[in-house]
Amino acid sequence: MQGDLEEALARVLRQPVALTVAGRTDAGVHATGQVAHADVPRAVWEGQRARLVRRLRGVLPPDIAVHAVEEAPPEFEARFGALRRHYVYRLTDADSGPPPLRRADTVGWPRQLDAAAMAAAAGSLLGLHDFAAFCRRREGATTIRTLLALDVARDGDLVTVRASADAFCHSMVRSLVGALTAVGEGRRPPEWPAALLGAGARSSEVPVVPPGGLTLLAVDYPPDDELAARAVVTRGLRS
Amino acid sequence: MQGDLEEALARVLRQPVALTVAGRTDAGVHATGQVAHADVPRAVWEGQRARLVRRLRGVLPPDIAVHAVEEAPPEFEARFGALRRHYVYRLTDADSGPPPLRRADTVGWPRQLDAAAMAAAAGSLLGLHDFAAFCRRREGATTIRTLLALDVARDGDLVTVRASADAFCHSMVRSLVGALTAVGEGRRPPEWPAALLGAGARSSEVPVVPPGGLTLLAVDYPPDDELAARAVVTRGLRS
Repeated sequence: MQGDLEEALARVLRQPVALTVAGRTDAGVHATGQVAHADVPRAVWEGQRARLVRRLRGVLPPDIAVHAVEEAPPEFEARFGALRRHYVYRLTDADSGPPPLRRADTVGWPRQLDAAAMAAAAGSLLGLHDFAAFCRRREGATTIRTLLALDVARDGDLVTVRASADAFCHSMVRSLVGALTAVGEGRRPPEWPAALLGAGARSSEVPVVPPGGLTLLAVDYPPDDELAARAVVTRGLRS
Repeated sequence: MQGDLEEALARVLRQPVALTVAGRTDAGVHATGQVAHADVPRAVWEGQRARLVRRLRGVLPPDIAVHAVEEAPPEFEARFGALRRHYVYRLTDADSGPPPLRRADTVGWPRQLDAAAMAAAAGSLLGLHDFAAFCRRREGATTIRTLLALDVARDGDLVTVRASADAFCHSMVRSLVGALTAVGEGRRPPEWPAALLGAGARSSEVPVVPPGGLTLLAVDYPPDDELAARAVVTRGLRS
């Protein structure tokens, strides 16, 4: 996906472009609100900005769309500058399976789910915790995150789980949803997912749900006028 | 689509099944609320009803889902018994094209659309008219219909047209939307579509929009306790 976008930008701008993406997504994961940045010479940008979205549409595959391109302050950094990421996971326990027009982003679940039990379990996961039990380990990546929202809602046969955090470790949303489905099926009590927070390492008991149900909805950034001050702090912390 | 469903039912019920479908859709048109009926021996039905939706899911291609199966009164007739059909047409005039996750049922429109002008034009088409200008001719089929709703709404870049009628002649929704897009682009005045109602035959000036944006949402039927009385009337009219 990132490669397709870099290639399309390079074709339209007639020069190599290196993108930094806010929320890197595993294969099969969707995004409707992904954010990325690239450094482009001002002359190239000024010459293309008015028609860039339309020209990108002409060269991108139909499963990628660029909604908007904007000039950002020099301090803007799509990945490390992000304050919060928002995801949704969609699954259905209908006997009839996923609705055909939404099967690209909705996973069929073969057993009935108790959304109220899932919501109760989700509530006890909020806050600052070591989510190691729900993370695929990556060298040097912290597993301590602040989970800001984990909301379970049912609408007919559709169960959605909305997750927001400062950042997510690898496969964290899919592991959280996996733990919630174990509760929803009645195989685990609602207290079980929170009890795993103490574990210092990934739990093999936590199922990871398929990538196709997951969509990155939005990424939050500080207002432009705060970017410069924050960039100094971030650089200080990173060095 | 009908053939796939008949084949799936025949496999699960182990006998040939002939379906009657409420709103026959052209290739590429979607349906989320299609209705069909079939006559099935009571013993076969009683033996399969509890698991029929789940078993159909196992044999149907993923672009067809059966939401529910129910026993209907003997007088129920999916096609001629329908009171009203409801469709939606989805198009977007975003420079970025259709959103990737909705590109199956959303058509990208290459020019900006004035939804308010489209809505004004739509309002003057309501009621009982000869819609011949908006119909592909079929032997013996009437083109006199009652258009109950034709609502144009914009939500961001998405323009939706909702159409309801007692019945639609062939390609009528796609022709009505086509006429509205001509108004939305400013190529025709809002009075133009209604002026075509007087024409006794298909107008070659009316564009027909692509099938992919059209979805059959719902079909209305009279309450079960009115079916018997109505069936007598319908049979009387048809004989």
